[in-house]
Amino acid sequence: MIIIGGTATNGIDESLSKILSIPLIKVENKIFPDGESYIRIPVSVKNEEVLLVQTTDYPQDKHLIELFLMAEAIKDLGAKKLTVIIPYLAYSRQDRRFKDGEAVSVKTILHILSEVGVDTLVIVEPHKPEELTYFDGEVKIIHPYPQIARKIKEMTNDPFILAPDRGALERAKSIAEEINAPYSYIEKERDRNTGEVRIKEAPNLSLREKDVVIVDDIISTGGTIAQASKLAYSLGAKNVIAAAVHLVLTDNAKERLKEAGVKTIIGTNTVKVDYKDIIVLDVSQSIALNL
Amino acid sequence: MIIIGGTATNGIDESLSKILSIPLIKVENKIFPDGESYIRIPVSVKNEEVLLVQTTDYPQDKHLIELFLMAEAIKDLGAKKLTVIIPYLAYSRQDRRFKDGEAVSVKTILHILSEVGVDTLVIVEPHKPEELTYFDGEVKIIHPYPQIARKIKEMTNDPFILAPDRGALERAKSIAEEINAPYSYIEKERDRNTGEVRIKEAPNLSLREKDVVIVDDIISTGGTIAQASKLAYSLGAKNVIAAAVHLVLTDNAKERLKEAGVKTIIGTNTVKVDYKDIIVLDVSQSIALNL
Repeated sequence: MIIIGGTATNGIDESLSKILSIPLIKVENKIFPDGESYIRIPVSVKNEEVLLVQTTDYPQDKHLIELFLMAEAIKDLGAKKLTVIIPYLAYSRQDRRFKDGEAVSVKTILHILSEVGVDTLVIVEPHKPEELTYFDGEVKIIHPYPQIARKIKEMTNDPFILAPDRGALERAKSIAEEINAPYSYIEKERDRNTGEVRIKEAPNLSLREKDVVIVDDIISTGGTIAQASKLAYSLGAKNVIAAAVHLVLTDNAKERLKEAGVKTIIGTNTVKVDYKDIIVLDVSQSIALNL
Repeated sequence: MIIIGGTATNGIDESLSKILSIPLIKVENKIFPDGESYIRIPVSVKNEEVLLVQTTDYPQDKHLIELFLMAEAIKDLGAKKLTVIIPYLAYSRQDRRFKDGEAVSVKTILHILSEVGVDTLVIVEPHKPEELTYFDGEVKIIHPYPQIARKIKEMTNDPFILAPDRGALERAKSIAEEINAPYSYIEKERDRNTGEVRIKEAPNLSLREKDVVIVDDIISTGGTIAQASKLAYSLGAKNVIAAAVHLVLTDNAKERLKEAGVKTIIGTNTVKVDYKDIIVLDVSQSIALNL
């Protein structure tokens, strides 16, 4: 078995190679002057079992096309089995038609992955596990909750785990149970035209003197977490921490969170992040334990 | 039948709509703050025959992913037949393994197009027509030679058509025959490691007082054409014109051509070009005639 490190790995390929004691081969990659990607597998993969690591963070489309090229090349070159580890799956939030006529983007991406020869897909914290049924082969889901929970325990005295919407409740519950903390959730609504998010219903609870940890899968613009943070303070919170697996952090998300009183951001290396002011956990251990 | 204008069309969708008198619907498209593309088909395509126009010029990977999303959405929404017009097909120069282990990129792109529901593919001037056999459905190839030939005739007195390598000879011949001009070709070699191109063998001919038109499918960095231009002048050429279908024109290609004595560049709108100093022909008429 060999690990092939793709064009975007955030070091996860190297960590996995060490943890699992499997040799790592880096894909050969360059960008032609016109912007096209060049991909070469610089080692024989004939009859090999290959673990390919490729995340699909920004620029998502380039990282996806490179993933398709690498996967098909590995299979064409005779690999016996191809497992692709995608720490962050792009397009996972467009998982159904919110309006008539919309592309179900994650369906198309997973459909393509089925067709370019991927046998097993390993995804860290998918936005909705159900969406992975669009992939034809075997799927393994990695939840890095224990790591995140340990870090939260280490950083708080009296934690309260808060999900910023109903969709994040299971995540909040898993983390809360790891550290025996109370938890609850907020109801939010998103306007599909403007993208604006507002709180529909807040839980009837006191957060007095609590270290409130707002837990989500992705922090993108930070809008949802910022609103939840303000609500938490209005309910008496002492501190607010934001914890998420995928720190996409677009625009001025960091500033938005800071302004809303978020004291610390905890996340992982599934997407490329600027480590400044952020606690970044390496998900490789969680992946290795569940392969 | 309807035409759907994709996210990258260079006006070809609008021209086709007028020439063919078929209604044009523009796809709804935006970019999310994190960089992902949003695609929506804003009209019912149920039981319709759809002509989708999408070129795959820079940024190629975004335009390709958007193409995959649009194609699958159109088919999922019930279209009876999907014809995709790709004026410029990205990745077409990586059509085989020049070195062991390389991705055959155009194979993967065409394979994916087969899988996302494309029934017929219309490609303008593919780099190698044979590569289109990687697509499972029907293929139509558009050669905009007559248009280019007419423009050359209009601009020259005593034209000589020169192919800058053996691969471009058929193109040069087609154009030369349209206007009863003489033609020949140069042998070149490309170093697959450095990408450098050099002339291996020049034709034994005099170009004295000729208007030499160097004809190729793509002008990318301009290196090949620049070398051919210098050779043409050394063989007595009066003027050199460069004519190609796809004006990718990376880096400082325009300056490189100018320095090599190229007086005029003729091309088409299959890729987005800066019209300054370039004669750009609209390929829509050629496409419409061959649909």
